[in-house]
Amino acid sequence: MEGLDATHLRTLAAVVGEGSFEGAARLLHVTQSAVSQRIRALEAAVGQVLVRRSRPCRATPAGEPLLRLAGQLVLLEREALAEARGPLSGTPGFRSGVGTGTRVAVVANADSLATWFVPALARLPADLAVRFDVRQDDQDHTADLLRDGTVMAGVTAQRTPVQGCRVRRLGALRYRALAAPAPAGRWFPDGITEEALAAAPVIVFDRRDRVQHRFIRAVAGRDLDPPVHYVPSVPAFSEAIRLGLGWGLVPEQLARADVAAGRCVDLAPDRFVDVPLYWQHWRLDSPVLAALTEAVRAAAADALR
Amino acid sequence: MEGLDATHLRTLAAVVGEGSFEGAARLLHVTQSAVSQRIRALEAAVGQVLVRRSRPCRATPAGEPLLRLAGQLVLLEREALAEARGPLSGTPGFRSGVGTGTRVAVVANADSLATWFVPALARLPADLAVRFDVRQDDQDHTADLLRDGTVMAGVTAQRTPVQGCRVRRLGALRYRALAAPAPAGRWFPDGITEEALAAAPVIVFDRRDRVQHRFIRAVAGRDLDPPVHYVPSVPAFSEAIRLGLGWGLVPEQLARADVAAGRCVDLAPDRFVDVPLYWQHWRLDSPVLAALTEAVRAAAADALR
Repeated sequence: MEGLDATHLRTLAAVVGEGSFEGAARLLHVTQSAVSQRIRALEAAVGQVLVRRSRPCRATPAGEPLLRLAGQLVLLEREALAEARGPLSGTPGFRSGVGTGTRVAVVANADSLATWFVPALARLPADLAVRFDVRQDDQDHTADLLRDGTVMAGVTAQRTPVQGCRVRRLGALRYRALAAPAPAGRWFPDGITEEALAAAPVIVFDRRDRVQHRFIRAVAGRDLDPPVHYVPSVPAFSEAIRLGLGWGLVPEQLARADVAAGRCVDLAPDRFVDVPLYWQHWRLDSPVLAALTEAVRAAAADALR
Repeated sequence: MEGLDATHLRTLAAVVGEGSFEGAARLLHVTQSAVSQRIRALEAAVGQVLVRRSRPCRATPAGEPLLRLAGQLVLLEREALAEARGPLSGTPGFRSGVGTGTRVAVVANADSLATWFVPALARLPADLAVRFDVRQDDQDHTADLLRDGTVMAGVTAQRTPVQGCRVRRLGALRYRALAAPAPAGRWFPDGITEEALAAAPVIVFDRRDRVQHRFIRAVAGRDLDPPVHYVPSVPAFSEAIRLGLGWGLVPEQLARADVAAGRCVDLAPDRFVDVPLYWQHWRLDSPVLAALTEAVRAAAADALR
């Protein structure tokens, strides 16, 4: 620790976790000026600016290793305390009160959150009394949140381990190309030809979502520039397809019900896009993190390819 | 226009709309250095930095009025062109090709997107050949995107008109307090008492979501500090409730199916939270914006209180 104050580190974690000095003050039950003083004291001790005073507050590059350290200390301290106080088994979920309960910050991409990820969280033994702090982010950008210490684990498309993290392959989320039956007939009268794919409107989640473009490149053999609707919400994305605004790629778990009910057709049952997903987590000897990793692996084994 | 170059303004709109110089170059089919030159030329003409070179790129305060102007010019120009080229009716949806089609950037909160908002978009006449650029944001923060010109209209909780905008009341989204049956019995053996509300774990969408806390204050008569799970995804939020991670407030449109199927119980059928929603849009004599406003009002009249 080399003289770093644990309270100051916890305050740093609270500022970035809550996104503001005000939120940190509320969480820690201290005044906002106490929060400011602690951060300034920590910055003076390290000789670096640690927090970008943006909305939300983020760690500076110099702040990132300290934030990760702070998160790890908080986790280990809570677990040691919980062990010292004796097993919680038999205590219903959260009844042990506000002060206890380990906060577990994790990130996952929108489609994992909408399909297989929450059942993984629900597999955790209730006696761990975990409080989840879930973040949603694109599978290609979750690594940033791991690196800056905002989360301790996450579902990511990045297979290279983030510094200080361990990585495991979870399997692939399979996407199927869906459209509502009537527009599918209008847009693709001769199937998914290059000409039809260049003209048919396509739903894309947001500007970082490349799944539709990967499908187009795989089928047409080159990039095309069709008209795009951006719809960055998993339920709205499927609804836009069902209502005929465009076609798009949907995780097979969500596609099944729409196809079975005749609300959508699979444009290419023999074509799909597999997005490999990885679980990255801090290298830390923590029972909570170990239990979460086991639960995520088990749920992924059921749901992914 | 006082000498401002329309191509430069369009480029500004593309940089902020796509979030990057690279994305703007792709959209406009020019090189990235052409994009940079245009932005620098516009900044020189105005004498102000207009774009914050962040990820994503945003307008500076000086850039905001120019961005709004650019968006309005693009919209009016496209509509005039469409009119000059003759009615598109009879042309199926987007077959008119890549260059045409009016891009309509709108924002809505996550629960509106997951319930009533996409059907509003689908009500727009197909011959308008609109391409939607939907953003998702908290209902208390959509005003920022209107102000900085990123979107031309949005669903917001803010009733005070944003500068340059017109505002209409849409109705209220009604939220109901749900929990899975078994945990509901454990957490609330004597109903939603203050003691039970202080101890039962609650699902909250993110740190800006105050709906659960409003319900608690209304029922308990004061603020409480229960254990919180943050789950910022509409389908994951409902799934977390169904799987017994906590209780939470769900839009009545989504609550109905879970209650009818016995997966959840309504903790307080005579209590609910109504969140009034407003439609804010640029003051602009645009047929597309008028049609969208009419479609949103009609869908809201069906779905909201």
